[in-house]
Amino acid sequence: MTTAIAHLGPSGTYAEAAALIFTKGFVTETAQEAILCPYPSIAQTMEAVAQGEAQLAVVPIENSIEGSVTMTMDALWRLDKLQIRQSLVLPIDHALLSQASQLEAIRRVYSHPQALAQCQQWLDIHLPKAQRIATHSTTEALQHLDEDSTIAAIASQRAAQLYNLPILNCPLNDYPDNCTRFLVLGLDPSPGGTHTSLAFSVQANQPGVLLKPLQVFAERSINMSRIESRPTKRSLGDYVFFVDLEADARLAKTQAALAELSTCTETLKTFGSYNVVSP
Amino acid sequence: MTTAIAHLGPSGTYAEAAALIFTKGFVTETAQEAILCPYPSIAQTMEAVAQGEAQLAVVPIENSIEGSVTMTMDALWRLDKLQIRQSLVLPIDHALLSQASQLEAIRRVYSHPQALAQCQQWLDIHLPKAQRIATHSTTEALQHLDEDSTIAAIASQRAAQLYNLPILNCPLNDYPDNCTRFLVLGLDPSPGGTHTSLAFSVQANQPGVLLKPLQVFAERSINMSRIESRPTKRSLGDYVFFVDLEADARLAKTQAALAELSTCTETLKTFGSYNVVSP
Repeated sequence: MTTAIAHLGPSGTYAEAAALIFTKGFVTETAQEAILCPYPSIAQTMEAVAQGEAQLAVVPIENSIEGSVTMTMDALWRLDKLQIRQSLVLPIDHALLSQASQLEAIRRVYSHPQALAQCQQWLDIHLPKAQRIATHSTTEALQHLDEDSTIAAIASQRAAQLYNLPILNCPLNDYPDNCTRFLVLGLDPSPGGTHTSLAFSVQANQPGVLLKPLQVFAERSINMSRIESRPTKRSLGDYVFFVDLEADARLAKTQAALAELSTCTETLKTFGSYNVVSP
Repeated sequence: MTTAIAHLGPSGTYAEAAALIFTKGFVTETAQEAILCPYPSIAQTMEAVAQGEAQLAVVPIENSIEGSVTMTMDALWRLDKLQIRQSLVLPIDHALLSQASQLEAIRRVYSHPQALAQCQQWLDIHLPKAQRIATHSTTEALQHLDEDSTIAAIASQRAAQLYNLPILNCPLNDYPDNCTRFLVLGLDPSPGGTHTSLAFSVQANQPGVLLKPLQVFAERSINMSRIESRPTKRSLGDYVFFVDLEADARLAKTQAALAELSTCTETLKTFGSYNVVSP
């Protein structure tokens, strides 16, 4: 059986780089064949797994500078049944690709909004007048470069090699220690791991509603390594809370906490337990 | 004395609309004169107050659909000494402004990244091929409209009136109940209010570090109405946590919690107590 692994495409994205690293380990471990399947958006990458078109997906969840990838969180909540199989951390060095011979010639910079945000100070200083244009992926940005030498794109050095495009500057990111954490998602849960992820909503506009869910973990000395809120999009102040626990869901303590949590939340979704890998 | 109130400009932004509403109440209450001062970015709006150029600033902090305005949070943490005087909720209806006679003619859409994100489904359906170009404000987007009728901008209906520009479609936002909450910031704290905001960092890479800060509030039955993390930008997994409490900092219970919190966090910054106003 060949396992289809979905990721944000076209070829050359950071998500593809993460998917390649994961796939190498996966093929060795399972002795299965695997193919990478590029999709035009993060949401479509995740939907491919939910609908059975692909067995696994590799998607970014947070960056060390720009924070959460909100569209991944929103799709995780919406699609409901996806489970986290592994978490994978990748260092990110952005490069400025262009046919221009010098920075002064550049009028427009194309890239994914996360990449533009991770390089905003560099752009403010070196290309203050250039328009910043959002694309669906860092690779999609490259398609404009051949038409016009006043255009630049922010993408990976690997993309520059793949498409034989000149690098004008690298690294571009405002902070040197720029990393992105990816999730490997599937329909089956992983057997377990050091971290457990979940999300819950609470009854809106009731005083004290977040207190009880947080007490469930505090009373059992279960640490959260991350807590993040996203709007439910129903009304202001009405949130979905995303929590990462430093605990395996197979432990009795974690199971008791999850059982109690389901009694004091409106909707509770668990995304399984998994390990965090830094290749 | 005339009070200078900074906001994201140029004239016609939602921040200016919020600043106008606040200013009306402020002038009536204090019998002082006030002038609005537009700045080219949210960060510069907040720096104007930190450096004494303006006495107050009105800045967006969260939207009911897109969530946190991360640049406001990052500047609040960085600038350190700003205090929240009031919180103000404004309904947001986006309009598509263009000299084009029909949608089919539009090739590029300019707006602030938050406005583009709040209308992304509408854009996916009605203008799937149009490029989305980020501007520093919804009003800055308007300066391109007169040059070229294949360009559209997303801005407020008020901006359309101010600059005498045609509205092609309204409302554009993907969810009808679209609201943005603004903060009024100054150097002096407000005398008190129903909500208290603070942010703290914890020692990185230590197990259990978030547990104790959350227990401080849970043990005293102090509810959080919002908890949000932002990267410290030092390393992945190292966060600043922003917390809104449903409590007045003048109460002995809150004061005891804040005193204990300072002993179990690395850096603790308090932004004062204030009331939330929905005009």
